[in-house]
Amino acid sequence: MIFEEADLVIKDCKILPMNNAGIIPKGVIAVKGGKISYVGDSGNAQCIRAEKVLEGHRKVAMPGLVNCHTHLAMTLFRGLAEDMTMDQWLEETIWPLEAKLRPEDVYIGSLLGCLEMIKNGVTCFADMYFFESKVAEAVKKAGIRASLASGIIETVDWQTGDKSFDDAVYFAQKYEGWAEGRITTRLGPHTAYTCTEETLGKIREKASQAGIGIHIHLSELGTTPPYIARKSNLSEVELLENQGFLDDDVLAAHCIHLTTKDITILAKRGVKVAYNPVSNMKLAQGVSRVKELIDAGITVGLGTDGAASNNSLDMFETMKIAALLQKLHYRDPTILRAREVLRAATIKGAEALGLHNKIGTLEVGKRADIILVDLNRPNLVPLHDIYANLVYSARGCDVDSVIVDGKILMENREVKTLNEEEVIKKAENQALGLAGS
Amino acid sequence: MIFEEADLVIKDCKILPMNNAGIIPKGVIAVKGGKISYVGDSGNAQCIRAEKVLEGHRKVAMPGLVNCHTHLAMTLFRGLAEDMTMDQWLEETIWPLEAKLRPEDVYIGSLLGCLEMIKNGVTCFADMYFFESKVAEAVKKAGIRASLASGIIETVDWQTGDKSFDDAVYFAQKYEGWAEGRITTRLGPHTAYTCTEETLGKIREKASQAGIGIHIHLSELGTTPPYIARKSNLSEVELLENQGFLDDDVLAAHCIHLTTKDITILAKRGVKVAYNPVSNMKLAQGVSRVKELIDAGITVGLGTDGAASNNSLDMFETMKIAALLQKLHYRDPTILRAREVLRAATIKGAEALGLHNKIGTLEVGKRADIILVDLNRPNLVPLHDIYANLVYSARGCDVDSVIVDGKILMENREVKTLNEEEVIKKAENQALGLAGS
Repeated sequence: MIFEEADLVIKDCKILPMNNAGIIPKGVIAVKGGKISYVGDSGNAQCIRAEKVLEGHRKVAMPGLVNCHTHLAMTLFRGLAEDMTMDQWLEETIWPLEAKLRPEDVYIGSLLGCLEMIKNGVTCFADMYFFESKVAEAVKKAGIRASLASGIIETVDWQTGDKSFDDAVYFAQKYEGWAEGRITTRLGPHTAYTCTEETLGKIREKASQAGIGIHIHLSELGTTPPYIARKSNLSEVELLENQGFLDDDVLAAHCIHLTTKDITILAKRGVKVAYNPVSNMKLAQGVSRVKELIDAGITVGLGTDGAASNNSLDMFETMKIAALLQKLHYRDPTILRAREVLRAATIKGAEALGLHNKIGTLEVGKRADIILVDLNRPNLVPLHDIYANLVYSARGCDVDSVIVDGKILMENREVKTLNEEEVIKKAENQALGLAGS
Repeated sequence: MIFEEADLVIKDCKILPMNNAGIIPKGVIAVKGGKISYVGDSGNAQCIRAEKVLEGHRKVAMPGLVNCHTHLAMTLFRGLAEDMTMDQWLEETIWPLEAKLRPEDVYIGSLLGCLEMIKNGVTCFADMYFFESKVAEAVKKAGIRASLASGIIETVDWQTGDKSFDDAVYFAQKYEGWAEGRITTRLGPHTAYTCTEETLGKIREKASQAGIGIHIHLSELGTTPPYIARKSNLSEVELLENQGFLDDDVLAAHCIHLTTKDITILAKRGVKVAYNPVSNMKLAQGVSRVKELIDAGITVGLGTDGAASNNSLDMFETMKIAALLQKLHYRDPTILRAREVLRAATIKGAEALGLHNKIGTLEVGKRADIILVDLNRPNLVPLHDIYANLVYSARGCDVDSVIVDGKILMENREVKTLNEEEVIKKAENQALGLAGS
């Protein structure tokens, strides 16, 4: 094929399209108008004119990673609530800190999070937090893609930010399509227990009527914490199912403590799951039965969760631990194979966010969200199995270049959209102020 | 204090000595004749003359990491035996590959492993393999420190390399103190089941008589594999105890399937444990009860195991997963706190190898095995808790410089002792040849 002009060409790289097509050992990707205009073998391609060319020798091009669950501004709390019980973590540390958060904290914390994700090859993330418009501003500046939800929490004795239903709807409607279409929005009820039944009903109604997705924490905790009044003996999934809340527009984070009946309900309703292995292990909450979720036909993406419970936003690390934890849990090393993990972090993640028609694979017509991983590293040699090397041996710092919507956000590890030194300095100051005040 | 001259000075860095002294917020380390000659606050130190100065601003100096269990040359098999059952992994893939290994394969695989470890801040490792003299040569060239054991395996129908008792003793005696004293040696019986009782007896006798340590796999597998004749219904620990094999010179890797009685025996005998969380998860073997081992007073170091079952030699990753796995296993996030993990990867690892008087902390008189970690990275900001940041947020690529025995092996991420490009190319070719032939 001959393409006559392109904004960007990546040449002579290995390509993992992550669709049903196989690996292209030596290929070319062309980008025009923010979309992929060509992807294929080098031998068949001839570029006439390209504004910018990236050399792909000894690199692999693959879809950018999709982080399906985080609270980006919590980068400011990294290291502040360590090795604590879940109650100490949430009630004694995180919530009091969040009560002090100002919009400018959320902005700088989100910039730091965007910077960390870009440096680690994440091109899209799903966030749920407060002052979410500030997260949107950071996303716009950083050039990354995001699905943002303003958090709704009400049944605990603690208040901060724009967390009401009305504010969340306002945010969702105002920011949908923002940042040249890179931002999509959701409604963000905190959990089935920390929102009233009435509010959950309003959320479902608004979501269905206006076509806005939902992002919620589901079945994260093994026991009901003291700060919430348990509404019934039903599981969280059953409770939401009885309220008619569950549908295929729901992104449910964690999903650890599920009964087999719960899994059947989630599958029947088409609920999408964000699996957060690192956070679930660090907070000692348990293991999501991801093998069974996938076997039931449920779409499972991967998430890092916030940096206060991870404490990193490196999705390469999350991929590895995602696989290790399932293998251990089922005592079967053949479970969640490397390619399946890579799908969970790319196309399945995109599906979980309802963005699979736009991103998640490298195909003509999709938005150009592409990362280049440098294979010329001691930890990635030899190259017997590229899927295994990417999942089990690579880390975020092996990512060489990052492209979102056709725009280069990082080249040769240099971030183009943010001043790395400045973001680091401002975030450090802001965070130390928060912790000390 | 005034020191008049030094070979190397690291100035204005944070210092984690990892002994009972606390963090030095801004300090100086001086090295002379391969040893630490000064460590303390910048304010009190004045260097008269130094051959070489490393700038430590925004960096932390800490003891180099100690990898207590690996099979270094298995880097060549990275990605070759993925997502398989343990039997398929060992019998159908790894053993047939090992039967083809030549000394030159072990040399280049070990060089690649040394390169990867140096780039990730590992300064000392314990290895058990075949053609171990080739590992020693790689260690010598790379400038790293190691405790090496020539493997002894005999009761399975498979043979390669210099694996007999006599060869192992010859190796241990010839290479002890080699590479300017950086190499110490051990005897390497494969397991309690893959060596005869007679051989285990000879190993214990030789070890006690000649003062050579032992490195063995212990209680890794949950069930007895078909290729070995189970000698009795005793646990592996009981079996070895009954033979009088266990003593404080034994480094036992894995120790997963332990009874409470086993733990008591290990504690009583002073056996040292190498905990390999990544490999244990990836091969789905189980979880070592490290909290109980530590509570029983047992010295626990951390290991990566070989790159065929990890598939990385990054001890920062191992530290994080070590902690996460214990927290999950006991469903208690307060277990194995960050500082304790960092001790396991430094001074406790040194203790496990019998090297705690030489390395493992930054103290005057100890050998200068030091790493500098760059704190000026998006994933390491803010710096609320340096132990937590190093264990949960840092990765090997955040290591800036590596010093072993006072010699700089890596500076600003550039390895000085090995030609990175050349090692990568040779290892890639050698590995592809092995897999294809």
